[in-house]
Amino acid sequence: MESRRSFLRKSAFGATALGIYPLGQLQAAAPQTERLRVGLIGLGLRGTNHLRNLLLRDDVQVTALCDTDPARLELAAQALKEAGQAKAATFGAHEYSYRDLLAMEAVDAVVISTPWLWHTPMAVDAMKAGKYAGLEVSAATTLAECWDLVNTHEATGTHMMLLENVNYRRDIMAVLRMVREGVFGELVHFRCGYQHDLREVKFNNGKQPYGGGAEFGEKGISEARWRTLHSLKRNADVYPTHGLGPIAVMADINRGNRLVSLTSSASKAIGLHNHIVAQGGEDHPNAALKFKQGDVITTTLTTARGETIIVTHDCNLPRPYSLGFRVQGAKGLWEVDGSRIYVEGKSQPHRWDPAASWLEAYDHPLWQRYGEYATGAGHGGMDFFVMHAFVESAKRGIAPPIDAYDAAAWSAVTPLSEQSIAAGGEPQHVPDFTRGRWIGRTPYDWLKDTF
Amino acid sequence: MESRRSFLRKSAFGATALGIYPLGQLQAAAPQTERLRVGLIGLGLRGTNHLRNLLLRDDVQVTALCDTDPARLELAAQALKEAGQAKAATFGAHEYSYRDLLAMEAVDAVVISTPWLWHTPMAVDAMKAGKYAGLEVSAATTLAECWDLVNTHEATGTHMMLLENVNYRRDIMAVLRMVREGVFGELVHFRCGYQHDLREVKFNNGKQPYGGGAEFGEKGISEARWRTLHSLKRNADVYPTHGLGPIAVMADINRGNRLVSLTSSASKAIGLHNHIVAQGGEDHPNAALKFKQGDVITTTLTTARGETIIVTHDCNLPRPYSLGFRVQGAKGLWEVDGSRIYVEGKSQPHRWDPAASWLEAYDHPLWQRYGEYATGAGHGGMDFFVMHAFVESAKRGIAPPIDAYDAAAWSAVTPLSEQSIAAGGEPQHVPDFTRGRWIGRTPYDWLKDTF
Repeated sequence: MESRRSFLRKSAFGATALGIYPLGQLQAAAPQTERLRVGLIGLGLRGTNHLRNLLLRDDVQVTALCDTDPARLELAAQALKEAGQAKAATFGAHEYSYRDLLAMEAVDAVVISTPWLWHTPMAVDAMKAGKYAGLEVSAATTLAECWDLVNTHEATGTHMMLLENVNYRRDIMAVLRMVREGVFGELVHFRCGYQHDLREVKFNNGKQPYGGGAEFGEKGISEARWRTLHSLKRNADVYPTHGLGPIAVMADINRGNRLVSLTSSASKAIGLHNHIVAQGGEDHPNAALKFKQGDVITTTLTTARGETIIVTHDCNLPRPYSLGFRVQGAKGLWEVDGSRIYVEGKSQPHRWDPAASWLEAYDHPLWQRYGEYATGAGHGGMDFFVMHAFVESAKRGIAPPIDAYDAAAWSAVTPLSEQSIAAGGEPQHVPDFTRGRWIGRTPYDWLKDTF
Repeated sequence: MESRRSFLRKSAFGATALGIYPLGQLQAAAPQTERLRVGLIGLGLRGTNHLRNLLLRDDVQVTALCDTDPARLELAAQALKEAGQAKAATFGAHEYSYRDLLAMEAVDAVVISTPWLWHTPMAVDAMKAGKYAGLEVSAATTLAECWDLVNTHEATGTHMMLLENVNYRRDIMAVLRMVREGVFGELVHFRCGYQHDLREVKFNNGKQPYGGGAEFGEKGISEARWRTLHSLKRNADVYPTHGLGPIAVMADINRGNRLVSLTSSASKAIGLHNHIVAQGGEDHPNAALKFKQGDVITTTLTTARGETIIVTHDCNLPRPYSLGFRVQGAKGLWEVDGSRIYVEGKSQPHRWDPAASWLEAYDHPLWQRYGEYATGAGHGGMDFFVMHAFVESAKRGIAPPIDAYDAAAWSAVTPLSEQSIAAGGEPQHVPDFTRGRWIGRTPYDWLKDTF
């Protein structure tokens, strides 16, 4: 397998293939930008990854960078230089310096990759400033924030896209195609979640981003600096969108269907305490902390069309990674665990098919087109596609495939799961963030081969 | 692999190895029976299977048979004759003829394998008659019935055993051993369920037990005659014990732990209607029926020790069989889907081990002892073990491994899931059928190598 850069060199892909539709041929109604001028807010590991992918595109100019950590800012400026791009404006003197970035005329769109508590405020400010906003997951941490995103989008007419990369995973897109082509029949039930041992993300030694110690917050670095506090203080599914995002698209949530209610239950919380003791001993100050977040949180959602969706959050225990997808309909089902598919009348009765041949046969047009290139972009290629969709939507000034209503509905699982758990599993209504318009909104055409 | 009968012939196993502990050497405190005299109530496919397994034992004499279908009764009598056993008394003139069987002095124990609605009444009558009762799953269909089992056991001092065969599955018993030996650490989360495409069980052509038509009730035969009505009338997990039974034992339910509450959600119900139309056409009278039971029902239980248990009922859609087990603790987990195990410090970091080598290393003593013999007994051997435990417990007159409290707690999921679903997912308290004694009851020693 040749490396991504060598592929780029050989095919001169950066200069032509990425700008699939030369701008002159575009049919989009909205105003277009010759070259999308992007500002990045947040240049940690995630933001820097987005930066590197953007720098490979000839339809993007990175005009502004913002981070409160001068070292990260310097690293990003260096990346621009290496890519032969013009120097970008830089911001980061204080926490609200991003507003100076948003005030720049030479910024059309922003990519926000900051700690969760900044996501909604920054996306709201971006839309108010008329900047097409790309927002990392999860979008919002309270119901009020969910509404902030929707209300600001509606008040300003400016778009935001939730940058949920798992929606672009190759198997997910193949299964989405199978769903759209009716392979599984009428849909009935879904499973998904975020099952990822994050103990070495939540704790480090203050020197390396992953592991090596029992520190977090002030004494930790990278994600441990802020993410771990959510586990300490909130008994909630704080990270629902990697699982729910792909399922919501398959289920036409906000587009002919909607999330109606949920119940949520949390197991005991022992994983993070055990990890602190294992890393730092019984006497480590963090060993005295009582973490609120249950190790396994299970949320059951119901939809207007009568499907159920189980969403799992399982990040504090030793376990291999799995998003635990299941997509089940009247004619068959896909399960990611065991990588298997059953389709009535096609599979041998009562026997699983290996998923691989099905996923290959239904490979998504976008992956057929860009797969080889995308694979180097991070997270197995998903990161290329999500950024591609963002850039192409922003260039055209059109609604993105994952919009403010999606961001709000998916992220609402965090506060609602918290409420349900606190109330012993009481069902919670999921607000209709579309204000009733879900009945007439039509699904985004995820099967087109552009973005 | 040699057949079961040839194994029996070669090793004369029937005459010696099955009566492991010659009666004279038994240390049990309770009164013992030289040869357990068993009556069978219900001789459908399930009861007949139990009969055939009992006839292979030299410590059992089948003294009475009961079924309201003369053909089934005749078939059973024939099986006795072929086994060279003395003729048994037969009953079945009417629905309550089983009470005449219970009145026989020459019956020590009964095996009840009848339609669900007869389970509790018959087990209650059996205990009142002083007969050690073996009851097929599920035990009870309402909360009152759950209490009936417990109250009758306590009032009479007579035992009942729930004949949950999955508790004796080879992988389950190996994982139980791993749990008991601490391999997974402190337990946190479980998954299980009954995911079995029963459409051809629920509908047949009135001539064959499985499939071939869209008939049930009066026009169906075998299970379709009675089981399908539960899907038509009740939106509930009507069959929870195959999944919950094994998990409840691992979690020490009623023995140091208990089920505290549950929430339940049902998907839409389309599978059975679709099946009727596929089998009998749009104009078939059954195509007009509205089935209440959601195709996928998900129940989340909480326990006194802070674990959560997800129980799934998924029987109306095309899908391969899986009981969907997961057993997850502070040190690792087993998942039956994908057949994989992860144990921190033993497995490669973030990588699954194939379950097989673990399951082999922790093979249960009972399976090591009887595995080769058991495999022919039905359902991959489980049926031998569950009947073995029943017979050995009844012979000794001691409490069985799965008792009236277990039967009540596990079966309570049916009415409680129904209540929760009807109330939009409202949490339901699970009654403490032990009346507080769960705090002091010690787990049954499932790891001993006798039964």
